[in-house]
Amino acid sequence: MEWILSNGEIVKEQDLEISKEDRGYQFGDGIYEVIRVYEGDLFTATEHIDRFYQSAEKIRITVPYTKDVFHKMLHDLVEMNSIDNGQVYVQITRGAAERNHQFPVNVEPVVVGYTKSVERPVAFMEQGVKATLIEDVRWLRCDIKSLNLLGNVMAKQQAYEEGYFEAVLHRGDTVTEGSSSNMYGIKDGVVYTHPATNLILNGITRRVILEICEEFGIKVVEEPFTKQQALEMDEFFMSSTTTEVMPVVEISGHTIGNGTPGKMTRKLQQAFEARIKLGVIS
Amino acid sequence: MEWILSNGEIVKEQDLEISKEDRGYQFGDGIYEVIRVYEGDLFTATEHIDRFYQSAEKIRITVPYTKDVFHKMLHDLVEMNSIDNGQVYVQITRGAAERNHQFPVNVEPVVVGYTKSVERPVAFMEQGVKATLIEDVRWLRCDIKSLNLLGNVMAKQQAYEEGYFEAVLHRGDTVTEGSSSNMYGIKDGVVYTHPATNLILNGITRRVILEICEEFGIKVVEEPFTKQQALEMDEFFMSSTTTEVMPVVEISGHTIGNGTPGKMTRKLQQAFEARIKLGVIS
Repeated sequence: MEWILSNGEIVKEQDLEISKEDRGYQFGDGIYEVIRVYEGDLFTATEHIDRFYQSAEKIRITVPYTKDVFHKMLHDLVEMNSIDNGQVYVQITRGAAERNHQFPVNVEPVVVGYTKSVERPVAFMEQGVKATLIEDVRWLRCDIKSLNLLGNVMAKQQAYEEGYFEAVLHRGDTVTEGSSSNMYGIKDGVVYTHPATNLILNGITRRVILEICEEFGIKVVEEPFTKQQALEMDEFFMSSTTTEVMPVVEISGHTIGNGTPGKMTRKLQQAFEARIKLGVIS
Repeated sequence: MEWILSNGEIVKEQDLEISKEDRGYQFGDGIYEVIRVYEGDLFTATEHIDRFYQSAEKIRITVPYTKDVFHKMLHDLVEMNSIDNGQVYVQITRGAAERNHQFPVNVEPVVVGYTKSVERPVAFMEQGVKATLIEDVRWLRCDIKSLNLLGNVMAKQQAYEEGYFEAVLHRGDTVTEGSSSNMYGIKDGVVYTHPATNLILNGITRRVILEICEEFGIKVVEEPFTKQQALEMDEFFMSSTTTEVMPVVEISGHTIGNGTPGKMTRKLQQAFEARIKLGVIS
């Protein structure tokens, strides 16, 4: 049996009730997080929980627990579902109320969380993946990890249908991020990635990678780069909670470097894996 | 007791079940319509139903009924709930499946519809309303009536808190539409409104208004106008399914015309009301 987090309590799956007028269902009026579980431990949980509260605050939803209580709930959920390697998905919406665009008054937010088992995508991480350039048509608040994900969904689907693992989104000429990941190029030993503005989600994995770069003395330039520059990088990779450091060896039919994961990408991958094993972040 | 449309059947409210993994709840991966009911009749139902199918098609959801069957369901729902003056809300999502951005396979879409009683906002329509300029940060597919409405929600809320009835959204210098309405200015007898591109939703009420203008020989220019031009219009109004032709008498503290609903706006209001009474569109 699966246990579900529902408004501060851990309940049986069949006891979860979602209203047709939950604002998450009608407006996408909510935010979420996905937290990776390695060997039963929530990885970088503090960072994900902090961002959960920040995203909620940006759209003015108040999470009705302290961060410590929330952390404990997620931990208990993982334990009760006996998740070894997997993830926790958790979202909060503004609540259920008669449908009007403006915020309802005196309504409690709705929290739903659940777990699933997921293995690390080791084969892809070993070989690298192909990605394709797709126009970024999303809204201008991609810094909020909101439930308004239709632009991401349509880009991911297009990439999949064309045989690619991920979309490299570009707004006009500028590469922003992936449909569910951040994007990085490496040229002459320097790592380039879009700055954490309103146009991208500042990934927790991204932050770990930038920390690793700093530790290793690798220069990082957080500045936008163009589609053309992307194709001309020596190495390319993407990152996310589930794909970690994922080498990108082809973009829109263009081979990156020699078509295999680059040396620096490998180094970052290994350093990331070491962090998982140490659990140093959470 | 309230009756609900749920996947092709009309069921009791308490029998409706929504999955935590309904893609509407996690991605806003769906579309919707709101259809006005006047004196028990669905107004411009054909047009709303056509747009429902078009929006669904744009995000590649297939509505699992013919338009005629769908129309009959909505009609039956209104009748069973004894709605005299009110509205039907209906949405379709891509279905419920394990959470992944790309489309799930072999999943049935989920349709939910329900009704409520609503009176016409006659006092506001008589006096006119105030609106305020707010930056349009939404995605670039506003032509799709999708469930990704957080940008609209945040704009509407800001307008409300500042004492305004609606937001006049502008992308840079260009006025696009309202947070849940279309926007029109009148200058020297000519009606100006943003063209039906990817930046606005082509309202059904908008289409009726443009038809009325044509009948009356009123010139309509479907071209973008600027914020400054908006403030200098002789008359201004907004339109939507629930607000019909709604005079806007003030924008961001600037009085439009003499601060009361303009003559042409009144004429369009009356012509729209005549259509409701005739039910000529549906």
